[in-house]
Amino acid sequence: MNEPINLADKLGKFDATWTPHIIAELNGQQVKLAKLEGELMWHAHEHEDELFMVLSGTLTMQLRDEAGAVREVVISPGELFVVPRGMQHNPIAEPGTSVMLFEPAQTRHTGEHLTARTVTDQKWI
Amino acid sequence: MNEPINLADKLGKFDATWTPHIIAELNGQQVKLAKLEGELMWHAHEHEDELFMVLSGTLTMQLRDEAGAVREVVISPGELFVVPRGMQHNPIAEPGTSVMLFEPAQTRHTGEHLTARTVTDQKWI
Repeated sequence: MNEPINLADKLGKFDATWTPHIIAELNGQQVKLAKLEGELMWHAHEHEDELFMVLSGTLTMQLRDEAGAVREVVISPGELFVVPRGMQHNPIAEPGTSVMLFEPAQTRHTGEHLTARTVTDQKWI
Repeated sequence: MNEPINLADKLGKFDATWTPHIIAELNGQQVKLAKLEGELMWHAHEHEDELFMVLSGTLTMQLRDEAGAVREVVISPGELFVVPRGMQHNPIAEPGTSVMLFEPAQTRHTGEHLTARTVTDQKWI
C-alpha cells in the first residue's frame, strides 16, 4: 500500500481472457482487472451489483429483463455501467477489450452457473 | 440505467473543485467524480476505506501514520490508491486534476472535521 496501483502495469501481468485478477480491496469490495474477448455466458448475481468500466476496446452488455426482453448497452473506454443485482447479463467484447470491475468480494464469476469457464480462485496481481 | 456513464461527459457538468459529485451507486458504495486543485485538509474516515483513481493531472496524497510520520504517494492518470480507514490523509492536487472516488455511501467528505469547505449534500450528476 505504499505505491499507487498502475492499471497498465497490472494489465501487463496476465494474458488470459475472462479471468478477473484482483488489484485492490476496500470495504468488502474488490477492484479487478479483466481482459475480455468474445462472449462469456448469460448469468446473474443474485445479491451483488457489478460495475464494469471499460479501459480499452468495446464491451457490449446484453441485458434481459424479467419479461425476457433483451437489450444491449455498448460501453466504450472512459465509460462505466452498473449491472444491477438479479439481472441476467451476457458480456460480449471485441478483441483487445480490458475492463476494471468493482464488486463485492464474495461475487462469483459466473453467478449461479458453475461451468468449465468459471474462475473460482481469482488471484491478486 | 439504460446508458453507460461517460466520465468526460459527467466531468463537463461541473466546475467546482473539492466538490464530489455522485455518478453511480452499488452495494452501498458510491462512485463519485471530483475536480481537485491545491490542498484539502488533513482528515480521516474512521470506518471507510477510500479509493482515489486519477483521471487527469496529478494527486499527491500525504499520509500520516500512527507515529506521526508523514509520507507521500504520487498518483498519476491511470493509477489508483486506497487510503485505509482511520489513516489521516491530505490530498494535494495540481491544477486540472480530476479523480474518480469509490467509497461507502455514508462517507463524510472531510471525515471527522466539519468545516466551511465540507460538502455535506453531495449531488448526483
